[in-house]
Amino acid sequence: MELLKSDSLKEAQIKLKNETEKLQLKTKLIKSEDACCFVCAQNIYANENVPPFRRSCVDGFAIRAQDSYGANESSPIFFDIVGQLNIDDYSNITLNSQQAVQIQTGSMIPFEANAVVMIEYCETYAKNKMAVYRPVSINENVIQEGEDIHINECLIQKGRRLTPSDIGMLASLGIEEIEVYQPLKIAVLSSGDELKGIHEKITGSYIRDINSYSLASRARQAGLIVKEIKKIRDDEKLIHDAVLEASADCDIVVISGGSSKGNKDYTKRILEEITHCILTHGIAIKPGKPTIISYDHLRETLIVGLPGHPLAAMMMFELIVLNWVNQKMNCLKKYPVFAQISENVSSNQGRETCLFVHLIQKDQGYEAVPIYSKSGSISVLSKADGYTLISRQSEGLKKGETVQVEVLS
Amino acid sequence: MELLKSDSLKEAQIKLKNETEKLQLKTKLIKSEDACCFVCAQNIYANENVPPFRRSCVDGFAIRAQDSYGANESSPIFFDIVGQLNIDDYSNITLNSQQAVQIQTGSMIPFEANAVVMIEYCETYAKNKMAVYRPVSINENVIQEGEDIHINECLIQKGRRLTPSDIGMLASLGIEEIEVYQPLKIAVLSSGDELKGIHEKITGSYIRDINSYSLASRARQAGLIVKEIKKIRDDEKLIHDAVLEASADCDIVVISGGSSKGNKDYTKRILEEITHCILTHGIAIKPGKPTIISYDHLRETLIVGLPGHPLAAMMMFELIVLNWVNQKMNCLKKYPVFAQISENVSSNQGRETCLFVHLIQKDQGYEAVPIYSKSGSISVLSKADGYTLISRQSEGLKKGETVQVEVLS
Repeated sequence: MELLKSDSLKEAQIKLKNETEKLQLKTKLIKSEDACCFVCAQNIYANENVPPFRRSCVDGFAIRAQDSYGANESSPIFFDIVGQLNIDDYSNITLNSQQAVQIQTGSMIPFEANAVVMIEYCETYAKNKMAVYRPVSINENVIQEGEDIHINECLIQKGRRLTPSDIGMLASLGIEEIEVYQPLKIAVLSSGDELKGIHEKITGSYIRDINSYSLASRARQAGLIVKEIKKIRDDEKLIHDAVLEASADCDIVVISGGSSKGNKDYTKRILEEITHCILTHGIAIKPGKPTIISYDHLRETLIVGLPGHPLAAMMMFELIVLNWVNQKMNCLKKYPVFAQISENVSSNQGRETCLFVHLIQKDQGYEAVPIYSKSGSISVLSKADGYTLISRQSEGLKKGETVQVEVLS
Repeated sequence: MELLKSDSLKEAQIKLKNETEKLQLKTKLIKSEDACCFVCAQNIYANENVPPFRRSCVDGFAIRAQDSYGANESSPIFFDIVGQLNIDDYSNITLNSQQAVQIQTGSMIPFEANAVVMIEYCETYAKNKMAVYRPVSINENVIQEGEDIHINECLIQKGRRLTPSDIGMLASLGIEEIEVYQPLKIAVLSSGDELKGIHEKITGSYIRDINSYSLASRARQAGLIVKEIKKIRDDEKLIHDAVLEASADCDIVVISGGSSKGNKDYTKRILEEITHCILTHGIAIKPGKPTIISYDHLRETLIVGLPGHPLAAMMMFELIVLNWVNQKMNCLKKYPVFAQISENVSSNQGRETCLFVHLIQKDQGYEAVPIYSKSGSISVLSKADGYTLISRQSEGLKKGETVQVEVLS
């Protein structure tokens, strides 16, 4: 039996990062309105001031503030109304002392005006005559040119996964197209003589293929393009050919199953033959140890042998493959929740543990209840709300300790 | 000036819930492999035990545990190897005292066996002869029939937004199709004479239409089907016809702009004419007050007049429209983060405040830094990581207080 030299998760991630440093992800221009959920591949700078001119925040009258000083309920100050500006009017009205222009929320403010009196504090008492019952200070109810967004301000940084609000922001600036990362193409292969398809009846020792379904779904959810899903018998030649073929066409190939020791373990040999560049063959993490990471420089393809066990395959797909994709796009923003662990948890020193938990929301935070399972378990897949990583240096968790939980959704 | 009678956010949500209680959302059958991110419209029960028979968790030899008692490094116990089971073999081997069957991880366990000795503690010393150096207890390294999933166990509850793991779970049970809620159809209309399209040059007092872009993106991200996006001039007849036409074809119509007081406010009148059922005209929340909720029983369409202000429109779309959609599907699971507010925040008693925040991740939790903006601001759209609601009863937040933040992504 060959003892696999294991890397820590961090070591494996860094090796992969370094080995693929020169790889440039492709980008493409798309319409801003279609860009939600894509990752932005350029910094977006404001090409104009917002607002582009001074604007009123209220309905009322634009005046020169100093003309209103001293006004009160019992002695209003009187103004001549010299014009009216609708929201869509450009102002070229000249405003003199004791003159006012009626404007709406959002209207441009005439050049000589420096404040807006709210309509509630004004009274029109004759044609083009108006009384002000309360003074305004300079710039009151005025939004300055560029106050919201300054020209040349960086509004969206490269690496941001674009949100609906960002799309609104792009629209407001008249930015019709932006550069985003092209979604990577992936092939999801699973090997195993015991694997049957979803529509097949289970007999004997067969089980249904889970990994093709869960990994392909997760890949699509994460924004990848699933080019191929294939179930392959445990035959070295067949697996070799399938991996080679997929790697010509895809940026990522994952093959689950066959990567643990045992008499059907060809994966490592196949990846060695195809890529000549195995970075990691074994990660000191539970579950997920039998994970092989290789990179094909010729075809620029990441090829990863994932564990056959569904939970372990999902976790290593997340922590190695998707982590790599996000790191290449510099898109690493996540919002884990913090939770108090509900009981003592022992851990296996020397290797990291991925502990699945159920989250219970409390008034001021979360409680995380560990979900234990034997290695073959698949029900944890649906029962877990998230997972937390326990470091290989840790002796375990103490009841009440705060842990960081990545939510699975 | 008409004073709008305002509901609290909760009151508005409950009125809408009650008024639409009889509405049954349509469902459809889809292939499990395509069901990720849809909301499940049925409880999913296990139709078989998993595993369907006793299975080994390790590579080794299946034996009767009692035959191994007393074995140790210096005095092993000897067994005859009477067979071998691969992962895809069905076992019909009969096992007697001091007999062993070689099996793999995942293999079926022969009927008379009750434990598996790991291969590390066995040594084959002659053809079909094997020594065991460590005893096993009954059921050691055995996964029982149904241990992972019991037949008839409810695995996925109605109302769950299906995750990649759920798709794996469905595959493992051979469930090829499931019933999900049909995505609702929405029309996103925006009115305002000041609105220009993204590709139009801004002159005078015009601004570009933001809401069509941000609301349509958010709707798609939330799983709705956007049937129509339309910008309409502030003309009562045009708006009336557009809303009426959209409501015939859609489950939801939102129209932003025109719902605050001012001389161009027709929205309320139009919705009254079309639906005869205005539930709320004004919500005591900042920003978002001028929100009109109506329900057209004839066409089974929710018609909502959203504020014109982009931030307010996004928030009310979230808190009224998407909240309603999720409530109708009973899909309310969210994972807000808890954060400590970085400074004192005053709030407007009598109405709720939606406070936008920037989140800073710390060792044991988050800090939430308030983002303040004048009412016309759009830059907050991209700067905020999330928002927290401050209750109308609250006098504000004290620095260090824990708040619940919904993440915007």
